[in-house]
Amino acid sequence: MAVCCSELVAYLKTVDRRILEYILSSDVAKGLEPADIKEGVLSYVQRPGKRMRPGLLLMACGSVGGEEREAMAVPAAAGVELFHTWTLVHDDVIDNDGVRRGQPTVHEAMTQKAKAAFGFDDALATEYGRDIAILTGDVQHGWSVTCFLDCALRMGADPLVILQVVKYLQSYVVPELVRGEVLDVQSGMKKGTDVSDIDEDKIIHMLRLKTGVLYEFAAMAGALIGKNTTELDDPQVQALRLFASNCGAAFQLQDDVLGVVGNEKTLGKPVGSDIREGKMTVVVCHALRHANENEKARILSVLGNRAASPDAIAQVTALLEELGGVERCRALARGYIDEALPYLDDIEESGYRRLLVQWAEFMINRES
Amino acid sequence: MAVCCSELVAYLKTVDRRILEYILSSDVAKGLEPADIKEGVLSYVQRPGKRMRPGLLLMACGSVGGEEREAMAVPAAAGVELFHTWTLVHDDVIDNDGVRRGQPTVHEAMTQKAKAAFGFDDALATEYGRDIAILTGDVQHGWSVTCFLDCALRMGADPLVILQVVKYLQSYVVPELVRGEVLDVQSGMKKGTDVSDIDEDKIIHMLRLKTGVLYEFAAMAGALIGKNTTELDDPQVQALRLFASNCGAAFQLQDDVLGVVGNEKTLGKPVGSDIREGKMTVVVCHALRHANENEKARILSVLGNRAASPDAIAQVTALLEELGGVERCRALARGYIDEALPYLDDIEESGYRRLLVQWAEFMINRES
Repeated sequence: MAVCCSELVAYLKTVDRRILEYILSSDVAKGLEPADIKEGVLSYVQRPGKRMRPGLLLMACGSVGGEEREAMAVPAAAGVELFHTWTLVHDDVIDNDGVRRGQPTVHEAMTQKAKAAFGFDDALATEYGRDIAILTGDVQHGWSVTCFLDCALRMGADPLVILQVVKYLQSYVVPELVRGEVLDVQSGMKKGTDVSDIDEDKIIHMLRLKTGVLYEFAAMAGALIGKNTTELDDPQVQALRLFASNCGAAFQLQDDVLGVVGNEKTLGKPVGSDIREGKMTVVVCHALRHANENEKARILSVLGNRAASPDAIAQVTALLEELGGVERCRALARGYIDEALPYLDDIEESGYRRLLVQWAEFMINRES
Repeated sequence: MAVCCSELVAYLKTVDRRILEYILSSDVAKGLEPADIKEGVLSYVQRPGKRMRPGLLLMACGSVGGEEREAMAVPAAAGVELFHTWTLVHDDVIDNDGVRRGQPTVHEAMTQKAKAAFGFDDALATEYGRDIAILTGDVQHGWSVTCFLDCALRMGADPLVILQVVKYLQSYVVPELVRGEVLDVQSGMKKGTDVSDIDEDKIIHMLRLKTGVLYEFAAMAGALIGKNTTELDDPQVQALRLFASNCGAAFQLQDDVLGVVGNEKTLGKPVGSDIREGKMTVVVCHALRHANENEKARILSVLGNRAASPDAIAQVTALLEELGGVERCRALARGYIDEALPYLDDIEESGYRRLLVQWAEFMINRES
């Protein structure tokens, strides 16, 4: 992480500690049964994570409400992380992904366990893994809502503010995330999609649904709790929402850059996996638009080819760079941050505001 | 339906109308996208249903709070039905069930659609059906929470009461339902379970997790809103909870009776399907305990045998009756109702109280 962000790094570490403390000491955590559900529900959240969403929620809260209200919002910060977690667990089932944060996904871990401990055959073990993962996500979903409620029930936040926050999460964010997920599933399954049909706008629209919406929510929730208001239209609440929205887009674009040119070790996932999975990113989209027929054919022969050799991946990676795809993606990401920062003009100078500025820069400076 | 219940029948019809009106006119319903999600989310709730949970919630509410507060609780009644619906949609995926309320389950309908409309092969279509069903349940889960919040945000219920209700639902009911579901999955998958290991207590414990918990919640939520209290320990709230709990057990036991001796037409599902699926009910458990070796072998050869002929099913059905399994199950159900009714002693005489009495009797008099 760049030096510019040392304050932010320290802050996110405290966020990590505070939300884990809240989550692991909760009665819900203690009561989880049976063992496989407990393991599933707590697994992702205990793996090292960047805590982007809880961090954003707390910084937004502190930036308009100060330290005292920021402390009040810790359960909400834990809630947004748990909420994110259930979407990951269900997403992993849907994408048939085996690895998350460098370790087996919930369904994969439970499939393995069912084979080893219960002696199930492959098909039955796969079903068991799927079942536990679906139910794990359901428990996390329920629990995440409870965390927000705790801000009012235990921390003294205004009940009406919390009702508004949870309503926005459950009646707007959930359907929007699901919409993005379904479009993703459909586009991934419908083979023979004409690549020329996909443009940057479509890709960025998908990024917003899949990531931006929850970033926006985190910022708004923090701001509403910080200002102790139910007014979704409050100018500062909206400024922080738009700040977060632009940062979210930049974050995802940087993800796509790192997916091509990132360092495998720092990243914790094999470089080239985006290419193997056929992910349609701005990098790929731009490169295809500027490729000649021969280059286009070379890219398409490797894109989405799970059996592609490391050599083939390396060659296509070089080609994507040569054709300006990485540069284009970086420039777009920078543009989003440049759009994001002026929204902070509405926020008074403070330590939290400085953290938000660092956070915005971190979106595109990060290497993992 | 027995004549005794004509008031109840009329009331449940109004409940059906009121919750559907609320659900279908909601902004969430109108905004659902894409089409497959909209279809999935709204499908079960639009099929004829008994509306047991919303009915119970509203009767409990009215019995302690009168008409005005009962009207206030309509969004919560819709919420408990939608909540029940997501558990069904996910349960159907987990059980690989193809039919729900006489029509295709969400995952089955979407699998068929993916084949017909998108031309997917079997494996891909099955995945698509699974994915849409998982996400459908997730949207319903989120939406169900929102409905409860509307009681405070739109109907004027006390925000703290609603926070308490939702907290109980999300941090207690969800994990309990999931616990029941996982135990069910595990016992269904682990073949070679020794039948003599299963006793009535275990069966009834499972019934409580899978059904009783949500019945208890519906009664408590109604009572809390009706009394406008956050006190879970309030004697009337607890009385209605225990009333509902006993009724829930009776309801399930009656289900198991009807699964053996019910009328296929009234029931809307093939009689004998419980036997084909190998469901371990009190009927079967009691019969096995009183069977000689020859009879036991005959029962076990058909139980869980999906290919069993109608003749074989009919013979085992007769045997289960002969051995007193049906009678035992009926007697147990009656016993639960006899335990349930005295809890209403704490509730003042009113039209709602009379409906609750009819409802309790309906649990075991119903034929569908």
